[in-house]
Amino acid sequence: MTSDNTIYIGKKPTMSYVLAAITQFSGDATQVTIRARGRNISQAVDVAQVLSHRFIKDLKHSVQIGTEELKDKDDRPMRVSTIEITLTK
Amino acid sequence: MTSDNTIYIGKKPTMSYVLAAITQFSGDATQVTIRARGRNISQAVDVAQVLSHRFIKDLKHSVQIGTEELKDKDDRPMRVSTIEITLTK
Repeated sequence: MTSDNTIYIGKKPTMSYVLAAITQFSGDATQVTIRARGRNISQAVDVAQVLSHRFIKDLKHSVQIGTEELKDKDDRPMRVSTIEITLTK
Repeated sequence: MTSDNTIYIGKKPTMSYVLAAITQFSGDATQVTIRARGRNISQAVDVAQVLSHRFIKDLKHSVQIGTEELKDKDDRPMRVSTIEITLTK
């Protein structure tokens, strides 16, 4: 069964997301995906790095970058960069 | 001959780095590497995305993330996340 082991990076501190990932790996997850957009991309990398350097050794990661088209507040299209870091035990 | 086609993301606007990459690809470069640390990581992804969506189609990219150990102003070690995006024509 595939459960949704995706963590979206928002406004919380880095360690909240690290803890969320640890929790998922402590359950039956062997793979956790960290996703972020725009300014949060840097923090997504931080989460992946803290997790694999300090908590779960030997994690493999693969990184995808992309672009999403959103609407700004005046309903005009705007493009925002995205990152998806897949961590595998 | 291997020339150093690396662009370090700093405090300039995104389009400055996009332009720098275009300039390198317009010369003899077939590969350009974009590097950034910490908060600048998001902008590195922006540069890669703007470049490949708006200016040079069919660029291939590969993304590496990592950690560098630096010293803070009190000479204590601090870790900072890094990204390296390699773009190939």
